[in-house]
Amino acid sequence: MRRDIYVDNLPLEEAMARWHQALDQGGCLAPRSEAIKVDEALGRVTARAVYAPCSAPLYNGAAMDGIAVDFRATIGASEARPKRLSPNQFVPVNTGNALPEGTNAVIMIEDLHHLPDGAVEIIAAAHPWQHVRTIGEDIVISELLLPEKHVIRPVDLGALLAAGVNQVEVLVPPAVTIIPTGSEIVQPGEALKPGNIIEFNSRILAGYLTEWGAHARRHAIVADEPELLRRAIDDAARQDGCDIVVINAGASAGSRDYTAQVLAELGQVIVHGVNIKPGKPVILAIVNGKPVIGLPGYPVSAVLTLRLFGKELVERRLGRVREPEPVVQATISRPLPSKLGTIDFVRVKLGQVGDKLIATPTGHGAGAVMTMVQADGILTVPAGSEGIGAGELVPVELLRSLAEIDNTLVFIGSHDNILDVLANLLHRHRPLVRLSSSHVGSMGGIMAIKRGEAHLAGTHLIDEASGEYNVPFIRKMLPDLPLILINLAWRQQGLLVPKGNPKGISGFADLRRDDITFINRQRGAGTRILTDLNLKKMGIGPEEVKGYQREEYTHMTVASAVASGAADTGLGILAAARALDLDFVPVARERYDLIVPTAFAADRKVAVLLAMIRENREFRTTVEQLGGYDLSDCGRSMYQQG
Amino acid sequence: MRRDIYVDNLPLEEAMARWHQALDQGGCLAPRSEAIKVDEALGRVTARAVYAPCSAPLYNGAAMDGIAVDFRATIGASEARPKRLSPNQFVPVNTGNALPEGTNAVIMIEDLHHLPDGAVEIIAAAHPWQHVRTIGEDIVISELLLPEKHVIRPVDLGALLAAGVNQVEVLVPPAVTIIPTGSEIVQPGEALKPGNIIEFNSRILAGYLTEWGAHARRHAIVADEPELLRRAIDDAARQDGCDIVVINAGASAGSRDYTAQVLAELGQVIVHGVNIKPGKPVILAIVNGKPVIGLPGYPVSAVLTLRLFGKELVERRLGRVREPEPVVQATISRPLPSKLGTIDFVRVKLGQVGDKLIATPTGHGAGAVMTMVQADGILTVPAGSEGIGAGELVPVELLRSLAEIDNTLVFIGSHDNILDVLANLLHRHRPLVRLSSSHVGSMGGIMAIKRGEAHLAGTHLIDEASGEYNVPFIRKMLPDLPLILINLAWRQQGLLVPKGNPKGISGFADLRRDDITFINRQRGAGTRILTDLNLKKMGIGPEEVKGYQREEYTHMTVASAVASGAADTGLGILAAARALDLDFVPVARERYDLIVPTAFAADRKVAVLLAMIRENREFRTTVEQLGGYDLSDCGRSMYQQG
Repeated sequence: MRRDIYVDNLPLEEAMARWHQALDQGGCLAPRSEAIKVDEALGRVTARAVYAPCSAPLYNGAAMDGIAVDFRATIGASEARPKRLSPNQFVPVNTGNALPEGTNAVIMIEDLHHLPDGAVEIIAAAHPWQHVRTIGEDIVISELLLPEKHVIRPVDLGALLAAGVNQVEVLVPPAVTIIPTGSEIVQPGEALKPGNIIEFNSRILAGYLTEWGAHARRHAIVADEPELLRRAIDDAARQDGCDIVVINAGASAGSRDYTAQVLAELGQVIVHGVNIKPGKPVILAIVNGKPVIGLPGYPVSAVLTLRLFGKELVERRLGRVREPEPVVQATISRPLPSKLGTIDFVRVKLGQVGDKLIATPTGHGAGAVMTMVQADGILTVPAGSEGIGAGELVPVELLRSLAEIDNTLVFIGSHDNILDVLANLLHRHRPLVRLSSSHVGSMGGIMAIKRGEAHLAGTHLIDEASGEYNVPFIRKMLPDLPLILINLAWRQQGLLVPKGNPKGISGFADLRRDDITFINRQRGAGTRILTDLNLKKMGIGPEEVKGYQREEYTHMTVASAVASGAADTGLGILAAARALDLDFVPVARERYDLIVPTAFAADRKVAVLLAMIRENREFRTTVEQLGGYDLSDCGRSMYQQG
Repeated sequence: MRRDIYVDNLPLEEAMARWHQALDQGGCLAPRSEAIKVDEALGRVTARAVYAPCSAPLYNGAAMDGIAVDFRATIGASEARPKRLSPNQFVPVNTGNALPEGTNAVIMIEDLHHLPDGAVEIIAAAHPWQHVRTIGEDIVISELLLPEKHVIRPVDLGALLAAGVNQVEVLVPPAVTIIPTGSEIVQPGEALKPGNIIEFNSRILAGYLTEWGAHARRHAIVADEPELLRRAIDDAARQDGCDIVVINAGASAGSRDYTAQVLAELGQVIVHGVNIKPGKPVILAIVNGKPVIGLPGYPVSAVLTLRLFGKELVERRLGRVREPEPVVQATISRPLPSKLGTIDFVRVKLGQVGDKLIATPTGHGAGAVMTMVQADGILTVPAGSEGIGAGELVPVELLRSLAEIDNTLVFIGSHDNILDVLANLLHRHRPLVRLSSSHVGSMGGIMAIKRGEAHLAGTHLIDEASGEYNVPFIRKMLPDLPLILINLAWRQQGLLVPKGNPKGISGFADLRRDDITFINRQRGAGTRILTDLNLKKMGIGPEEVKGYQREEYTHMTVASAVASGAADTGLGILAAARALDLDFVPVARERYDLIVPTAFAADRKVAVLLAMIRENREFRTTVEQLGGYDLSDCGRSMYQQG
């Protein structure tokens, strides 16, 4: 196998141009069509125009219940001079009945006076074709019912059937074969060994392809062996029932990345490597006249590159009109550096806070699928930019509707397990409230409030001098902002240790020990301040604590490090210990409060949250089950300013 | 059977309140749930919150290809003083590999210098956990993955599987049984007898229910017999697999409208009759604890009432968030009278003409399915209004995206079969151009241009004095408007007669004959003016022509009346005769032109249309096949002003 693969850095625009040209030349965009029953045609796209073979209605019919008459027999009738129609001058009809021969108008049942001898009396003349649905009133034979490339809607089914069309020629969704590759990946549900990765990318990719209208088929996992990969791609590209091939992954230039070589041998590689991040090593190729897209391995990279190079391909095969993705202008909450010459696609959360739509990056790791789960939009930093400054307005492509974003309550601050409980209960609420929470520590929350980027912040900062919680920090950092401080809970902090406490840790003093590796929280976290305060009290220097430098951002990641053996202990809350079945050595009880700027106190979403923590019984029961919480002050105003 | 059914006229708001109360009390909104495989969960709604049973990654793994090391072994390495690592100090790793015991950092392959003895040289120290994906970096065990009532998206599938969730509890789509009733309706494809109506409503209704997320099942047609209807409803309401019953129709108070009585016997009728038009006789009932909606018979009424009373029901069972339907402000093009006390739902076409979004009603007939096919939106005239004046701004609920409406070319004027050809070719164009055409005759077209409500108008008006086409009318009615007049075609007008011309009609003189019934066009139509001109020339008075009073709006409806025998002849174009296999007695050749205000001549949509009629070969071939057209001047400017 040749190992001289070179990943290019082609400008996106040029990569697109080359790809479109290759697809056009290869005839890869020509749609196929098939005739199907109208009853099965909902959502399909017409392959050609449909003209009406019959009129509707097909006959002149009564539009009302009443009698059918020849209008000439009614001339002269008036209230003053009612006219009598004998039984041979009219025929009773119901709505929809065909007009009997010789009649040309209908008189409504309400306007008739029945006489005992079977005749009727009328007090107004009928005009010709009154209350008659005439032939072709709805649809005239040969009229255009639906143009070609039209997505068939429910009402279109009715128009087709009404005009006597029972079969319709529609475009065939392109069939996409997704080939997951990698010797380390295993199917969901299989036993995992260290080094194994659960195969879920193909499911995400198939999901998007399905949403775009394609028929997605997931191939079995192909191990990282060139010969197996070659056979899988070749088979797929030769199959009649396959229009497009997607390979994930092997697109990079690592020692096990064979996709590019195999594609070069089987067909023509059009592009390998584009100036985008994530997604740089994407491969675009044509094999056996079929488009083949080699996606990078990380889920975020794979999704973004499939959207860029696969979505339009599917839509064009389906004759769909590509509508521009909805874009909003948002204010970026933190500076976003970017490499010159690279287009950065940044996942962001969005929240309408006051009069600003705030965009906050959800994190950079292209391997973190949760960053996409939590993303509300994608911000594009152009190739010519070295980054975006905090507070700048940027265009963000929406991944959720603006209505959903309007319903989003933005929480920034310290992490607590109660937030998950609230997020779920709020999502159940109707009208919906979505909780978008970013965990940047207590100080980070206060700063976000200061910058007007959050509806509320969670904080548990103890003041060294006074021993008072939160208020001294608020007075210092938010002196001029009208706000209320509301208690969420009192909670236990403690040293998290493996089950059974094998190293016999009993307090901060043990952190000095040589055989104990600590895991710390980031600067600005209330828990970090609590750690530092305790170490200082006991005269322990940071350099004496092994692992002091390694920082995690949440209680759960600290607990996770202890559970995995990466660290022996870390400071955290009881709920985190419980969740991971760790033991817990209590060291402090602390107050966790919510800062709510007065300007947002009347906001519907904030009001729903406050009502929930004050009154909702399920909220209280669930939190108490987490353990380590005291809700006796929950919902109470602890401080107010302005 | 009792016949004392009384259809109420309940205010919509009160009907809604009663309906919601009955649904709540009956527990009709309680959703059911089921556990399904994550692989099948795309688009489903979570029944409860999903928390992560495992972290992802499950182990500390390499985030890059390279070597795994203990960071302590690298301390001190620099460009000036490279450090040598012997083979026992590192382990080669590929991206995704688990970090071997004793290692805690990865050095990228690019940063290594391989020495001949198998050792490597590095020029920078590794910091702890560098290029390592740590346990829980993506998902931490016990973290909230998805809240309840969340629609599962492709990326959510990935998050679930990554966290070890292979099954998920989701809400079950409500199953809706649609019962089409009526002794006159027959299944599509069956032979039609006069009085028969093709059953298509249930397909439209099933289509909408499917789009809203329900499982729709169409019942066999039930004839208008109370006992059959009772059995069908009772069976459906008793079935475990049925959550909601929809009956179409029999909701009115006609002699065959049994639905209300049957429902009153089987359960509880909550509402019968609401102050809406169309849709007044709708019935809302509860039978066996299940919601039953009795829809009126006409398709437009049925769809509108199902949207009003059924959509939210389906969505609530699915836990969906009801987002407000998108609404735009549009200018109404003609006065819209409305009955005080009734809410009118008016289907409108929308078009952005200059700076105004113009709404034009598509027609009133609740039986005309094409009026819904052509509708872009629904305008609501409130109960307290007696109507809306032309030019007023009104809120319109959108049935198409604003992007589609922006792409709509608004044509108003005289009807010609060429318009269908254009509509189809324009719909094929990318970016899309939709042709929305309203046929109100040549005069109507000129008036629409005058009011700024159309991009272009079609006209074929002959001036009696000069014999000149269109220009004299433009000079008189649009004297100040800069515009160009562009020829579409010269076309044959003639008397349409049944095949073989059984009554031997040879010209206008025959219209005097007693045995001949004429069918006319509406006032303001070019064809009507041509008729009147010819009758006047021959000294024939309108009172001498039988059927002169009956007016149709298009060539095709005239042809249709002749084909059905409702009239013996009418004036129309050859294309209409051909389409319906009629014979054609030529009486005139006339010029059909397009009026294009100069302000719109550069509009992309107009430019696409003009280029099409001037250059597109398929356009010319198709029009020539219609017959009766001379395209020698097609696309040529015939007149210009301003």
